[in-house]
This record gives sequence, C-alpha cells and structure tokens, in this order.
Amino acid sequence: MTAGPRHPDDGKAPRPLAELAALVSGEVLGDASTSISGVAGLEQAKAGQLSFFGNQKYKKQLAATGASAVLVPRDSPPSDRGVVFVRVDNPHLAFARIAQEFAPKRTYVRGVAAGAHVDPTAIIDATATVMAGATISAGARVGARSVVGPGCYLGERTRIGDDTVLVANVSILEECLVGSRCLLHAGVVIGADGFGFAFDPSVPAHIKIPQTGIARIEDDVEIGANSCVDRATTGETVVGFGSKLDNLVQVGHNSLIGPMTILCAQVGLAGSTELGTGVVLGGQVGVAGHLRIGDLARVGAQAGVMSEVGDGEIVNGSPQMDAKDYMRSVAVFRRLPELNRLMRDLQRRLDALEQESKKP
Amino acid sequence: MTAGPRHPDDGKAPRPLAELAALVSGEVLGDASTSISGVAGLEQAKAGQLSFFGNQKYKKQLAATGASAVLVPRDSPPSDRGVVFVRVDNPHLAFARIAQEFAPKRTYVRGVAAGAHVDPTAIIDATATVMAGATISAGARVGARSVVGPGCYLGERTRIGDDTVLVANVSILEECLVGSRCLLHAGVVIGADGFGFAFDPSVPAHIKIPQTGIARIEDDVEIGANSCVDRATTGETVVGFGSKLDNLVQVGHNSLIGPMTILCAQVGLAGSTELGTGVVLGGQVGVAGHLRIGDLARVGAQAGVMSEVGDGEIVNGSPQMDAKDYMRSVAVFRRLPELNRLMRDLQRRLDALEQESKKP
Amino acid sequence: MTAGPRHPDDGKAPRPLAELAALVSGEVLGDASTSISGVAGLEQAKAGQLSFFGNQKYKKQLAATGASAVLVPRDSPPSDRGVVFVRVDNPHLAFARIAQEFAPKRTYVRGVAAGAHVDPTAIIDATATVMAGATISAGARVGARSVVGPGCYLGERTRIGDDTVLVANVSILEECLVGSRCLLHAGVVIGADGFGFAFDPSVPAHIKIPQTGIARIEDDVEIGANSCVDRATTGETVVGFGSKLDNLVQVGHNSLIGPMTILCAQVGLAGSTELGTGVVLGGQVGVAGHLRIGDLARVGAQAGVMSEVGDGEIVNGSPQMDAKDYMRSVAVFRRLPELNRLMRDLQRRLDALEQESKKP
Repeated sequence: MTAGPRHPDDGKAPRPLAELAALVSGEVLGDASTSISGVAGLEQAKAGQLSFFGNQKYKKQLAATGASAVLVPRDSPPSDRGVVFVRVDNPHLAFARIAQEFAPKRTYVRGVAAGAHVDPTAIIDATATVMAGATISAGARVGARSVVGPGCYLGERTRIGDDTVLVANVSILEECLVGSRCLLHAGVVIGADGFGFAFDPSVPAHIKIPQTGIARIEDDVEIGANSCVDRATTGETVVGFGSKLDNLVQVGHNSLIGPMTILCAQVGLAGSTELGTGVVLGGQVGVAGHLRIGDLARVGAQAGVMSEVGDGEIVNGSPQMDAKDYMRSVAVFRRLPELNRLMRDLQRRLDALEQESKKP
Repeated sequence: MTAGPRHPDDGKAPRPLAELAALVSGEVLGDASTSISGVAGLEQAKAGQLSFFGNQKYKKQLAATGASAVLVPRDSPPSDRGVVFVRVDNPHLAFARIAQEFAPKRTYVRGVAAGAHVDPTAIIDATATVMAGATISAGARVGARSVVGPGCYLGERTRIGDDTVLVANVSILEECLVGSRCLLHAGVVIGADGFGFAFDPSVPAHIKIPQTGIARIEDDVEIGANSCVDRATTGETVVGFGSKLDNLVQVGHNSLIGPMTILCAQVGLAGSTELGTGVVLGGQVGVAGHLRIGDLARVGAQAGVMSEVGDGEIVNGSPQMDAKDYMRSVAVFRRLPELNRLMRDLQRRLDALEQESKKP
Repeated sequence: MTAGPRHPDDGKAPRPLAELAALVSGEVLGDASTSISGVAGLEQAKAGQLSFFGNQKYKKQLAATGASAVLVPRDSPPSDRGVVFVRVDNPHLAFARIAQEFAPKRTYVRGVAAGAHVDPTAIIDATATVMAGATISAGARVGARSVVGPGCYLGERTRIGDDTVLVANVSILEECLVGSRCLLHAGVVIGADGFGFAFDPSVPAHIKIPQTGIARIEDDVEIGANSCVDRATTGETVVGFGSKLDNLVQVGHNSLIGPMTILCAQVGLAGSTELGTGVVLGGQVGVAGHLRIGDLARVGAQAGVMSEVGDGEIVNGSPQMDAKDYMRSVAVFRRLPELNRLMRDLQRRLDALEQESKKP
C-alpha cells in the first residue's frame, strides 16, 4: 500500500500574497502581506484564499466572493470591497500556476508491492511504484518514478516512460507505448483492436481485419477516465505530446492527434482521423474517418465533422459548417413554423393578386 | 469467494394473488387465490406470472399476454380473456413493489477475502464484504453490510456508507465519499481529476489546474456501468440523494446534481453544471457548464443544453428550446426542400406580376 | 504470466504473391513470384508489402503507395508504375483474408495462473487460460481454449464458451452467458442492471425494478473496450451471433440485437430496442426504446431513431428520416438565413403590389 496524498485540509503552509504575485508577475492592488492559505473558485473561496476573475460573465461572482485576493486582468480597477486584487496578463493561467504551489504533492512508496503480478522479464525502474493488484506482462518496461496503480494491466512489451501515472484499472495492451509525464485516469484502455471488418456474403460473416499496429501516447498527455485509444490496423495510432483528453473519449484506429489538442468528454473519432496542432473539440463531438481537422481549429459541442476543416476554422453543427453561419441557421430554425405560416400567407395573397390581374 | 444470488429459476415460493394485491392496495377482478410465482413484462410473462399494463401504447401486448394476472389502472374494465386484472393507482409502481418481493436476495460472505489487499489503517466494518482482488488504501472506511467487489479500488481516506455495493472494477479515488444504500455498477470511476487546464503560450503547453476537491455521492444513488463522476477543482462535485445515473454517463467537475434526478445513458455534464431536484435528462443529452437546469425540468434525448432551463420546463433540441416548439420546427425542417421550391415559385410569380404591373 | 504475441516486427515468413493471390482467387497482373512479407494500408505500405484499393476515393493514395502489390477490383487496368496489381472480386475482403495469414497468432499458457482467484465450484476447461488477477465465482464455467485476462470478473453461474477471449478488466455479472469465439475487449461490462425505476411520490423516491433477467452474447461476437450490455428486467438481452460492437457502446435492458449487426462507437440503445439482421448503426447513434430497426437497415452517424425503421431503409437525422431527404433538408438548413431574407423581400414586394392594385 502507498503513502497517500495529504488531505486537502492540511494543505501547505500559508504564504504572503507578495510572494505568490511575484510568481506570475502580478501587480498587487492592496495589502501585499495578506496571508494566502490556498486557492478556490470565486464562489467557493473563503477568507485567506486566492481566486481569479478571467471572464466578464462572472462579475456577479466577483462582487460576492469571499476570497481575500483575486487575480484580475491588467486593466481592472481596484476592488471597491477591500478585496486585494492582483493584476496579471492572464488570470486563468496565473491561477493554474499558483494553484500548483498549494496542491498536495502525492508521494508513492517505491517498488513492487506484494500482491502485484509482475513477469520476471519485465523491467521496472527501481524508483517506480507497482501497486497491489497490478499485472505486468513479459517484456514490459516501466520508467523512473512512474506509478502503475491497482488493477492496471500492462500487456507484453508495452513501455511506460518516466513520471507517468496509471491511476487504477487502466489497461495498456501489448506493444503499446506511453510517454513520460502522462496521467492516465482510471479505466483507460490503450490499444484495444481497431474496429475493422470486411463482410463476406458467402459465409455470411464479418471477417476481422487483424489489428497488428500499436497505439502510441506521447509525452505530457492526460487521458480521462474510461477513455479508449485503439491500436492501428497497421502502423500507429498517435496522441500527440501535451494533448489532453477528457473522460469517455473514443479515438479510432490510425487516428493521428496533433500536439496540444483538447478533446472534451465523450468525443468520438472514427478511424484514420487526423487532427492538427492545438485543435479543440467540444463535448460529444463526432468526427468521421479519413479526414483532417487543421491546426488550431475549434469544433462546437455535439457537432458532427463529416469533411475537412481548415487551419484555424471555427465550426459547429452536424454536418459541420462555419460556426457563425450555423448560429444564424439555428436562429431561423427556431422560427421555422412562423416562416412556414408566413409563406402560406404570401401564397394566398399572391393567388388573390393573380386572380385580380386576370380580371379584364 | 461469496455465496451467490439464488438462480432466477429457483425464485421464491409462489404466493396467492390476494396477498400481493394487498401490498399495493389493489382491487382483484377475478380469482384472488390465483398462485403467483413471479413477475415479467407483458410479452415475456407466462402462466403463473404477474405483469403490468401502464401505458395504452401496449394494448396489443396486453391482449396477447400469457400472464395469469396483470396490474391495470383503476378505471380499467375486466379482462375479456379470463386474465385476472388487479386495479391499482400506478401499475408501474405497483409492479416495482411486487417485483421486489420475488427478486432473489443476494447474500454475501462477510469479511475480507484472501486475495484482497487492504491497508492496515483502513477501517472495514465487521459486517462488510471485501472480495478477492479488491484494493483498499490507507485511511479508507467501509460501512456496515457494504460490499467491495473484485477489482474495486478505494483510494486513501475514501468513505463508503452502509449497505452500499461496489459491484466490480469500480474505482473510488482519494478522499471521495459514497453514501449508504448506493449501488455502483462495474467500471464506475468516482473522483477522476476534473478537466481543467490553462493554456500558456510561452511554453507552449496546457498547464494543469490541480483538482484538489472531491466527489460526493449521497445516499440511495445508483450509478451505471463505466460512468464517471469527476472530483471538483476545489470544493465538491455532488450527486444528490436518490439520483439514478445510467451507464457511460459523464459528470464534470463541480457539477451539483439535485436529489432524485435521472440521467439516462451517455449523458454528459460539463463543469459546474447545476441540476435541481427530480430533473430528467434523456439519453446522450449534453449540458454546457456554468448553468442551471431547474427542478423537475425534462430534457429530450440527444438535446444540447446551452443555457438556463427553468423549473418544470420541458425542452429538446440543440441548442435546447421548448420541446413542443422544437417538434414544430422539426416538422418544418423535414419539408424544407418543399418550402424552398415553393419560395422559388412564389418569387417567379411575383416577378411576373411586377412585370405585368409595369406595363402601361 | 503468459507467453505473448510475437512482435509485429518478427512477423511470419514471406510468401510468394502467387500463393496469396490463390487464396482469394486473384488474377496477378505482373510478377507473381514477388515476395510478400506483410500487409498494410496504401499510405503505410512499404516495399515487400501488400495493400488494397477498394474505393475510388483513394486514387491518390494508390498512385503514391510504396506497396509492392495491391489488391484491386476485377475491372482495374494494370499499374502504370510497376506495382503488381491483383484483381479480385472484393479487395477489402481479400485484404482481410490475406492479413489473417500474416497476423501474429497469440498463444497463451494453459491453466489457472497463481494470483487468480477461482472458486472451487467453478468449472474451468483444462485447455483454458485464467490469468493472474482474474476472479471467477461459484458455479461459473469457462470453455475450451478460452482466456480470462487480468482483472476480469466472472460472476456466479456465468458461462463462457470455447475459444473466447476476455482481454482485461472485463466484468461478466451473475448468470450471464457469453458464446464461443467471442472477443471482449478491456473494460467491457456484461449484465449490469437494466435502468428501471418507478417513481413513488409518497416517499418520494425512485423505486428500483429488480433486474432479474440476463444478458446473452451469442457466438462470434466482438465487443469494444468499455462497452456495456445490460441484463434484462426479466428474460434476456441478446447480442446476436457474428455481431460487432465498437467501443463505449451502450445496449439497454431487453434489447434484442440480430445477427451480424454493426454498432459503431458510442452508439446507445435504450431498453427493449430490437435490431434485425445485418443492421448498421453509425457512431454516436441513439435509439429510443420499444421499437424495431429492420433487417439490413442503415443509420447515419449521430442520428436519433425515435420510431420504427423498415427493412433495408437508410435513414439519418434526429428524429430519423430517409437519408437522402435528410441531406436535402440539411442543404436548405445551411441556407436558412438567405431563405429568411428572401421571404422578407417577397413580403415587401407583395405589400407594394397590393398597395398598387388598390389604387383606383
């Protein structure tokens, strides 16, 4: 068993606001000696805590916050309620940086726990942790300081880099590769067979196309609970470095996901989908196979991408279209019954006029 | 290993219909001494079984049922086929009550099985069951008569109430809380990190916002297979008492789900979503973050909720709108090509009339 | 621990093209003695590999392929680049057949591994494999040559046929049945409770309807990672023989899925849904309960099926409609703002004409 995280309540030692502001090049409007014991959202924050205000939508929450200090944009006026404001370039990012200062640092007992099942040919770094109930197969490798949690399975010849954590009940199938500094949440499956069959009417049966490729997860990737990245039919399915996938996401075989891409929950990519760098797909988006979504493109929640999306495009709808055009079409969709009535009315009036004009 | 459920075939002893009808204040139209050995749907039911008829849609199935007795609404006429009808206020609810009388009662061997991995600092009630292959971490607590199934993982300082069952391969991450009389099906993940990042263009990288809050599941909650409830960034993600979540549901960080809410399969809630009491979301519904869906509101399957929904509202579509208005718009959508042709026709006729009117 | 698959790189011995072509009744246009060492897609294929060209969409990839040989339709002209073409009836199917010749054949060590938890009353065939970390309950049966992977759970009285593989962390709940030659990927859950409740306003509470039926998976079925097939309320939920389900699919209680059906990723079927033979549902399709989708029907990705679909129908949209009509409606939807403007324009012109006609 491992030494656990510190309880959120026992946090880290409080620190003067000046010190934290310096980390994010912040300008303190008020008492810079204010003692900060932690961070929280505007609504949850209490005295002694630091929060952030990055979006004008949350003006009400800012006005009512219990936080002692708030990270605000550079052009913000001082608080009229005595809250200490800290002007920064990017409040959300500054919040992330400071939150990490206070986050409990989880520690793990090194070594292979009794109750873990590790093949003698597997190579586990001496600084890695393998917890009870984990199973590691022949030829697998686990890098320095990495953690294989309870119920995790590493198939034959899989490789896990350094400082990577597989939380619990994660399955990495044979030959697949996971980079360094990755975080794979509970229930993730890497390397299940791609979905490939050819129908043979003479049997009849769906004949399986063997899936002999692999899935490769690059460095600094986070994958949410119960998400799946399928192995390639041949070659590789790739999740690029620094990409972040939310829960219950499906990545089909031979998909190539560029670096720093964001896939929100329940997104599904069919086979051979290519995503460029920094693409953002909203929740429940579906993407057909054999197409490319360009660098920095953004796709609205629930959209269905059925054809190429260019670099930097912002699309929505199913099949997808320019996001602004989509919202205009949706606005008319909502008034369709009215349009329908109006058209019938025009038709009647036109009938009458035509009758009129035929009169001698 | 545990003693299993009784096989459905060896059921419970048959009981006279009169006795069962009394449990649900039913009025028996026919032979109240009919012996009932079990329950089933109208189509599956055989002689000796009781069924229910709660929706006029199933008149055909009622006419053809093999059941010996059927729960029917108060105003129903007697059967013209000799089936014994039992008039009740709510046939579906009465069926649920009587079905529980016949349901096999699963029993579990108390104690920690050999092959379970339990930290010595965990506190397991003497009447609880921990099966082989389960892993329980430091400081975790499991209440009276609760069951931790094979492959389940309880993180550090998690707490499970009384009479709760974690079926198999369930992961409850550190600090998270699960109430009493809950049922978490196989593969459920409670407390994976919320999906929070701030982009730092100077690296470039998505910087992780530490997720230091928890997820709290209140009493009497059922969560379907492979569903996920993320922990809060700070504070709590809450699933309110008596709520029922189907399979493959995603609950984002800091969501607050009111009591007795129903989330059908594959629903996804983004972060900081608030659902009132008794809300019902149909299958595959997506809900954007930072908004509220009011008490008793209902959302149609596949809808996308992008803004507030008031108490008692019934909505559908993506973005959502009043459900009746949505169906009216959909009806016109289906005839859009016809409308388009009609409009072109009107345009031509108008052109002609205008030409006409310009003639001297 | 088991002996693993052979590494893709150490493949099988190369074979002359003539021999492979004969397996699929192919006509070789070029050097039939070409040595083939493996298969790959047009884009990934290298010298010595065989690929296939089945869809005119991939002409560019064909023109640029590095493959030494390509399976092509019967009417194809020879390659103008010296690639050896092999004419066959169905290139995709022929590719599947030949790919199987080269696929590494995974072998497993027979018997129950130390570290597996098997109830003494379970009956495990002597040729079956039960890996470390698996749990098999009382009365369960596992057939010849079948494999129960790490972290898999077989509930009481479950039965697994012959030559079936449960990859890892698969949960089969009590009484459920899985046929022969099935492949259940990691994280699959068979037999979680159906989602059935009756609301009792007098408590208030959602009263659980006991789910006492089973789920039955017939022979030759493949089920993708983290997919769920719920048990029936009473009777059976069935996945018919030869059906293939992709990842993260939800099959509700009492659904009856006909043979050779294809469910793409993230499909959701509500309760009591009936699918005929050879039905194909695209990714993220949702199907309401208590309805039938006929034999050989096809449903487009993200569609929502809310009513019966006849045999052979091809539908799309939500609610679903004829697929071609749907695309026509979508085409107009995209121009709705233009239509709206046009109609306002017609209205103005009509107003003017009417004014005109009222003049004396």
